Formats: sequence, structure tokens, C-alpha cells
Amino acid sequence: MFDDKNPARTEISSLGEFGLIRHLTQYFPLVNKSSLKGVGDDAAVVQYNKDEQTLISTDLLLEGVHFDLAWMPLQHLGYKAVAVNLSDIAAMNGTPQQILVSIGVSSRFPVEALEELYSGMKLACDKFKVDLIGGDTSSSVIGLAISITVLGKAKADEIVYRNGAKPNDLICVSGDLGGAYAGLLVLQREKKTFEANPNFQPDLQGLEYAIERQLKPEPRLDVVDLLRNAGIKPSSMIDISDGLSSELYHICSQSGTGCSIYEDKIPFDFETSKIAEEFNVSSMTMALHGGEDYELLFTVPLNDYEKIKDNNDILVIGHITDKNEGLNLISKIGQSIALKAQGWDSFKSDE
Amino acid sequence: MFDDKNPARTEISSLGEFGLIRHLTQYFPLVNKSSLKGVGDDAAVVQYNKDEQTLISTDLLLEGVHFDLAWMPLQHLGYKAVAVNLSDIAAMNGTPQQILVSIGVSSRFPVEALEELYSGMKLACDKFKVDLIGGDTSSSVIGLAISITVLGKAKADEIVYRNGAKPNDLICVSGDLGGAYAGLLVLQREKKTFEANPNFQPDLQGLEYAIERQLKPEPRLDVVDLLRNAGIKPSSMIDISDGLSSELYHICSQSGTGCSIYEDKIPFDFETSKIAEEFNVSSMTMALHGGEDYELLFTVPLNDYEKIKDNNDILVIGHITDKNEGLNLISKIGQSIALKAQGWDSFKSDE
Repeated sequence: MFDDKNPARTEISSLGEFGLIRHLTQYFPLVNKSSLKGVGDDAAVVQYNKDEQTLISTDLLLEGVHFDLAWMPLQHLGYKAVAVNLSDIAAMNGTPQQILVSIGVSSRFPVEALEELYSGMKLACDKFKVDLIGGDTSSSVIGLAISITVLGKAKADEIVYRNGAKPNDLICVSGDLGGAYAGLLVLQREKKTFEANPNFQPDLQGLEYAIERQLKPEPRLDVVDLLRNAGIKPSSMIDISDGLSSELYHICSQSGTGCSIYEDKIPFDFETSKIAEEFNVSSMTMALHGGEDYELLFTVPLNDYEKIKDNNDILVIGHITDKNEGLNLISKIGQSIALKAQGWDSFKSDE
Repeated sequence: MFDDKNPARTEISSLGEFGLIRHLTQYFPLVNKSSLKGVGDDAAVVQYNKDEQTLISTDLLLEGVHFDLAWMPLQHLGYKAVAVNLSDIAAMNGTPQQILVSIGVSSRFPVEALEELYSGMKLACDKFKVDLIGGDTSSSVIGLAISITVLGKAKADEIVYRNGAKPNDLICVSGDLGGAYAGLLVLQREKKTFEANPNFQPDLQGLEYAIERQLKPEPRLDVVDLLRNAGIKPSSMIDISDGLSSELYHICSQSGTGCSIYEDKIPFDFETSKIAEEFNVSSMTMALHGGEDYELLFTVPLNDYEKIKDNNDILVIGHITDKNEGLNLISKIGQSIALKAQGWDSFKSDE
């Protein structure tokens, strides 16, 4: 994948573990004043202002489960690995400040491949003003493993949990859904086609948006800013990593509520619908169970409606109900269908 | 390994990812007041006192590189995975407060195996009063992966970095060295013997200490307390994860100094020396390059000598010198041998 771009091949062993860490992190200067000490000691040191709390989240990404190097370029993988962590801080209504990155990597990877991976991480760090302050680099005999921990800050009264939704609150999303899964279907098909015929030139025209949704998701930190500027504090919030259905389940179960969402309100991109048709899957299924869109799903009190109704980045898709009404999708013809949260179970063999 | 202890076998898929997290973390109550929100949202929330800074470190442990399930019981693995992270906070002269644990696990593991793993983590959390506040659980097709991030606290003027050693400072260690590597040699031999003859009953009598050093290392948080109570702030400190030689290299290169350590001052346990002889390796080599002892290596100003000289937990092994003198081991007959830091290079094929 990277050989043609980087004909040079430097063995990792020529740098050694600490040389490798220095090499990979040298272009990551610290920009946040909360980052007191970065890479290079037993631990990093951070300190936020006294009225700020520390948000912390971590994700482990494993080759063959969370990504497939056959269709995921390493630079995109680096960007995405950081982005999905920042998305967790966005989902708390906070501001990400630092990340720690651990990688386990086979010696089959040349240093140039890791440079690609870290260049993607650097793009995300630069764009979202996040400091790389630590981590761990080791060899792996079990494929590429990436573990990222993110630290963020928020004032106590700004933090939004999953458990604050109230009946009649409006359910909102920050963008179209199902696209990342549609992109995954296309990429998996291209991989199979390539395996069958390595000379085949794929035609991905008109599918770029969906593929980008899969390869380069964006944490919606802009929506956190937008809500703050509009004077809106959501009553609950979560990011859509596992599919709309699963995220609604989390909000409703933690808030002790039910919900109704409307089929005709769920936003789809044209490409998502086109791919859904091609693969004979409904767009709705992709949105409910596909996951990885990394849009924000949040609830706001009904009287905030005026503040959001003209905003193109916020779409109202339903409302919170009493718990005993359960979780429902109201179809275009007014039929109520019980929602099942099945998107999140990566251990089930049928998914 | 765990089948005989746990004849029941519950499939992970029967719980699902979130059910599994709930199940595994249910016996981890939050005990530190700095832990404001634990498992269950997009991020955990912590807040330290305004005069405290946050220490943060992360480690990624991969099957086949950092542990071998053939000889590492899962409960010990859980304990050790936590302990080695806490050791990083000890090495900063701080107090660990929280951990986040991510695991990637094959569906060949029953839930009971993960219960074993987490029971070891809980032992360490209970012993060192650390809260489990988050993490991530996913399937793995590439062996067991464990990523732990630890948060700790320290006042700004308490934190000890690697870079503060000065010429004439005394170099101290908190306990005997080489034992963990000696234990590893024994365990690897037993594995081979078992593979050749599964009915062979190993006789590990007289080797228990070394094996325990490998399977159940202890973070020396007691030494952090001891130093504080004695009114000593080390000028530099690091934990011995990669071998004495490598850690001295870090302290000297970051402090801009050299060092001299004395062969006859390096502490060895009797078992370590016995195993060294059996395997025809010198104890000194094990101490310098073996690693995983997780003792603290630190420097103190010469005038702190009176405060430490009668303390059995602190052993003076040498002193810091000018940079141009280099890193030296002074042999029993007074010969000066240049130290090489080779313990840390897990990418080199010859190690």
C-alpha cells in the first residue's frame, strides 16, 4: 500500500523503541497550555484550570476487527483513530486537549509505514488543536494494534451526560446517517474484486462521499461550539459510533425514558441511498445499525426549538417519550415499529 | 488453564459488549473523591484539587510479546497489567487514582476467563486504592490485547522527572534486581518441558520468589510514601521496567550526566543468583538487561545520605558523574566497564 509512495524502506529495528518514539513524535509540538510535560518521562503531566474537570476516554483498535489494511490507507487510519476519540469528548460537550497513542506493530512494517500512520494523527491533532503527550510503542506478533486515550476539559456545568433526557425533549442529530456503513460496503466489495482480479481498476466515481465517511470521519466539535454559541446545553448527548438504534437505547435507558423517531426525518445523503439500493439494504437499516457516522445525537428541551430550527447542522428526528412507551420508529405511513439495539454487539458472530 | 477451575463456560456473545462491560466492572466501586464519573458514558470525569497536577501514562500489552498465556495465569496477568501502570505513577513520585482498561479478546475466551483477568485487576485496584473508571471491550482476531491508562496526582513541587540528576548525587534502588528475568527463564523452561511431556510435574520449590517477581510485580508506592515521610525528594526517578542499564541511560541522557555503579553494590536475591548459575547467565546481566523488576531507580543529593543509610528498602548502588565520564559499571576488582543500554529494544530480532 505504501511501498509505491515510499520506495525507501527503513527497518524499525534500526531505530530501536525509543528512537522510534522520538522519530514519530518529533513533529508534534505541544500547543495547549494545559500540557505541562509530554513524551519522554514515565508519565505525562497536565493541569487544567481549577474550574475545569477532566474528561477521559480510551479506544482500542485492532487489525481485522476495527480496520482492514487492504482498504484503509495508513494515513486515514491515523486520522480516524484520533478522530473517533475526539468524538467521545465532543459527546460530553467538552474540548479535547491531549492524546496518548500506543501502537503494537509487526516488524513487517517499515518505519515509513508508521510515518504515514502518524502523519494522519498529526493532521487530526493540528486541525483540532490537540497535543500528543505520551504513549507506548512495541512490537506485535498479532497484527497492528492502536490504543488511543484522549483527555479533554469542560466546566462542571457544561458537561452533558447520557442520562438527562426528559419526555418531550427533541431528539436531534448533527448530520446524515448510514454513510460510513455504505462506504464500508463499497470498500469491502472493492477488496473482493481486487482479490479476484488485481488488474481491475475500480470506478468509485459518485461514491466518494460515502467512502470518505468511512475512511475519514470528523468529530463534530464544530457542533459543540455551535450549541454553545447558540446558548443551548443539550439535556443528553452521545456520539453515533454504533448506530442510531444503539445510541438511542443508551440515552433512553440511562435517562429512564422512551423515544419516538420518524422515518421521514432521518437524514440520508443521496450516495447512501444509492449504495443501499445497490446492495439491497435499506438506508434506514444502515442508519440504525451501521454505526461509525460519528455524528452527535442529542436532546434539547422543547423550548430550545426556536434556537435550532433554522440551523442546517441540526436536524430534529423525533422526541423523548415516557419510558413505558418504549423505543419506536414511526414509519412514513404512521406505523410504530419497536427499535432494537443490535448495532453494538461485535461479539455476535452474525454481525 | 482456567477450565479446571471454572467448569462453567459462558459465551461472551451471550452478554453482548455492553453487558460484558457491566458484568466485568460491577465489583469496582469508585473510592476516590477525584473520580466523579466512572464507566457508562462517552468519557469518564475526574477532578483533582487545584494544587494538584494530573499524571497520565499508558501501556499496551499484547499476547505473544508481553505475556504468554501458557505460563501466565489470567489473574496474575490482570494484576500485573495494572501494577506496571501504577509503577509509572510511582516513578513520577505521584499517587495513582484511576485506571481505564481496554481489552481485545477472542471469542475463544469464555466470560469466566475474563472474570479471572478482572479479578486480578481488582486485587491491584483494591490494594492500591485505584478506581476503574472506563475502557473499551472488543473482540479480537489477533490474540489478547490489554491497554491500560493510569491517572495519578501530585503537587507540582512533588513531581520527580528523569532529568534532575546532578553530579555526586547518590544512585539508589528500592530492591533486588534480575529476579523477574530469572523467573521468566524458569517459566519458559517449564513451558518447554510441559510441551515435551504433559505429564511432567514441575518442581518449582526454591524458585517461588523469582517466579513471583515475574508473575506478580509490585509497584513501589510504599517507597514513594517512605521517601515523603523521610523528607526526601529524589532529584530524578524512573521505574526499572527495561533493565537497570536502560533506565540509567534515560536518567543520564535526560540529566546530561554520566554515572558509576558498583558491581558489588547491586542487590540480588539468592534465588536470582541460583537461577543465573543454572542458566549460565550472570546475575549482573539479568539486572542490567532483564527488566520487569519494577523497582524504583532514583538519585538523591549526597547530603540526604544520613536519611537513607539505615533504611533497608533503599540501597545505594553508585553515584552520578560528569557527562564526559560516561556510564560505567565498576567491577569487583575495580575495573571500569562501559554500560550499554540494550534491554529496551523489543524490535531487535536478537532479543
